[in-house]
Amino acid sequence: MLENYIKNVREKNPLVHNITNYVTVNDVANILLACGASPIMSDEELDVVDITSICNGLNINIGTLNQKTIKSMILAGQRANKLNHIVTFDPVGVSASKLRTDTANELLQKIKFDVIKGNVSEIKALHNSGGKTRGVDASINDIVTVDNLDSMVLFAKDFANKYDCIVAITGKIDLVSDKEKCFVIYNGKEQMSKITGTGCMLSALINAFVCANSFDKLNAVATAVCVMGLAGEIAYSNLKEYEGNSTYRNLIIDSVYNMNEEIFKAGAKYEIK
Amino acid sequence: MLENYIKNVREKNPLVHNITNYVTVNDVANILLACGASPIMSDEELDVVDITSICNGLNINIGTLNQKTIKSMILAGQRANKLNHIVTFDPVGVSASKLRTDTANELLQKIKFDVIKGNVSEIKALHNSGGKTRGVDASINDIVTVDNLDSMVLFAKDFANKYDCIVAITGKIDLVSDKEKCFVIYNGKEQMSKITGTGCMLSALINAFVCANSFDKLNAVATAVCVMGLAGEIAYSNLKEYEGNSTYRNLIIDSVYNMNEEIFKAGAKYEIK
Amino acid sequence: MLENYIKNVREKNPLVHNITNYVTVNDVANILLACGASPIMSDEELDVVDITSICNGLNINIGTLNQKTIKSMILAGQRANKLNHIVTFDPVGVSASKLRTDTANELLQKIKFDVIKGNVSEIKALHNSGGKTRGVDASINDIVTVDNLDSMVLFAKDFANKYDCIVAITGKIDLVSDKEKCFVIYNGKEQMSKITGTGCMLSALINAFVCANSFDKLNAVATAVCVMGLAGEIAYSNLKEYEGNSTYRNLIIDSVYNMNEEIFKAGAKYEIK
Repeated sequence: MLENYIKNVREKNPLVHNITNYVTVNDVANILLACGASPIMSDEELDVVDITSICNGLNINIGTLNQKTIKSMILAGQRANKLNHIVTFDPVGVSASKLRTDTANELLQKIKFDVIKGNVSEIKALHNSGGKTRGVDASINDIVTVDNLDSMVLFAKDFANKYDCIVAITGKIDLVSDKEKCFVIYNGKEQMSKITGTGCMLSALINAFVCANSFDKLNAVATAVCVMGLAGEIAYSNLKEYEGNSTYRNLIIDSVYNMNEEIFKAGAKYEIK
Repeated sequence: MLENYIKNVREKNPLVHNITNYVTVNDVANILLACGASPIMSDEELDVVDITSICNGLNINIGTLNQKTIKSMILAGQRANKLNHIVTFDPVGVSASKLRTDTANELLQKIKFDVIKGNVSEIKALHNSGGKTRGVDASINDIVTVDNLDSMVLFAKDFANKYDCIVAITGKIDLVSDKEKCFVIYNGKEQMSKITGTGCMLSALINAFVCANSFDKLNAVATAVCVMGLAGEIAYSNLKEYEGNSTYRNLIIDSVYNMNEEIFKAGAKYEIK
Repeated sequence: MLENYIKNVREKNPLVHNITNYVTVNDVANILLACGASPIMSDEELDVVDITSICNGLNINIGTLNQKTIKSMILAGQRANKLNHIVTFDPVGVSASKLRTDTANELLQKIKFDVIKGNVSEIKALHNSGGKTRGVDASINDIVTVDNLDSMVLFAKDFANKYDCIVAITGKIDLVSDKEKCFVIYNGKEQMSKITGTGCMLSALINAFVCANSFDKLNAVATAVCVMGLAGEIAYSNLKEYEGNSTYRNLIIDSVYNMNEEIFKAGAKYEIK
């Protein structure tokens, strides 16, 4: 059933406004095009309200925030909320600095997010400001495993309830949850962590999938997370021995470009808890 | 004859100053290197006058403009005009926001552009501010076809006359025109629209080609547009079935890198109206 | 012996804070991941002190500096110095503008750099402000050759002595020197100059290698320079005839990803003067 969500993105061609970091912005644009959406980037406060108004979704990512873009995030987010656009949040590196923590909290107060996506460290930090992050990677003890799965599922549901959103917690095992139902997703390859921007790309992909499938946001997010992981598996199988993380990045985007219902049906690995 | 223009870029190695968006800036730099030019990027108002002074051309692109870079565009543009450098303009997403429209108009008033390049929606917006753009893509009804070719050629000549420039209107069919003579170019693949930055890359390529062939700017722009389209065709033919838009982007730049007179002569498809 | 330095980076996984240009920032992030380090980017003055505090190294690159990021560079650099982090400097395009020259001089006065890396033009400009640079490439007369090798080695040692640092001077032949001992490195391919960002990537790689091998900084820098050049050779040998500079860029990062002691031992080409 989820496989139809892929087709919907290609048919509806949602336009996604991204206020994102300059490190991975090109990959974000290309993965949106790969899935059938269209990207537009704008982070100037005099520009963002107009731009977000013509879009279907707004994707906010604080990877390289600055004082100017923080203002733009709030302006765009509030406008997008007013227009009932899909608004997603990727709190990259939250709790690595006071500015990132404060900004994340301000955004959470002023903007209603449909989806919040992060690794365990980032989501924990948002939940109780008791987590510690190691830069932009998850801390070593903050990984969802088979052993702590049940408690992490409860945590995800609790977080989703607290912020009235869908939460996507990424790692070796990915969790996508609302307050009642949690997808546990087993797609992906650990080598994806050796590429910059897989998380940023996923956030954008999630936004596009929810825009085109807003009748069931939880399913839409789960599909996007499966698509990304499955693309990582397919791309890895096409890597030659002399290739590495840079070519791998390209092949992941390529695999999203070639994703279809059949590939998804054969490869998606998830259960619901 | 146009094929000699390719060699001239490699021999003269023009240095092109780019004030461009941060989404596709890396691809812009690499395509300039691929064609035999050299890129330099600078958008700080205290820096741009010095930087543009040591260059041969200035390429202005408003894809992710902000208040600071708008000032820099004007300072650099006026300096480049004073030095008779080649100045090109890519009005990305003009009319998608008031800021973009106002900025484009201000730039057109304060800077003399040798070449203006955009899709039909963008060029129409500059011409009569009556067009509507859908983000950074051309609107669906704004496409040059065999059916509306004659009227679009007239439109191109009229635009070129109004702004005393060469205009390049990109789409399935590309038009490159001055007020009297219009190249109708049939190179390219529609899949190029699934890559972010093909337009931005083309603008930079145009700048380099005009810098190195300023004795005939119209021919120089037409050659650059053919080169880009032909590179898109060659790259597409080298794509493996598991590859997609990200690898395609790389192979297009690669194909510009490998472009030469023979390949051009065999592949360029254009007529003059 | 140097080959062990590669393993140390993978084992220690240093976290490198980059204040770098937006042209090549994605490649910088991916090459850090490729060698076993982790990248974090932040250039907002309210953010950089916190961010650099949790890192092992700070990599400053002035390729697209602006008034805001200059402040951030100084704040981060002074904090990193206080914490005895590894601080490296890439003076991209210094002397191409007054702002770049002034900024480089200010940074050199306010921050103690462990390593300064540039092409001959850039390093000469820092040394006596008598050099001229042609944008971001080395000037044609500013190349280390077999003929001027001895005098360039003396120059490198003199520069290293003046700034109490390791200097890496890149070109066809690379020099890595402290005040007493100079590595002359013959790895690399001239086609690497057709890719934007090989220099920026090397600076980041150097930072990671020194972070993980701070017991011998000179050897660490020399190893990083050999690794980059050797990666360029290996990547070139894997290029297909229809591929060019964009794919070459990916394969260089890939080759760093696959670099190990055996490959290094078999391929590193250097002598000590």
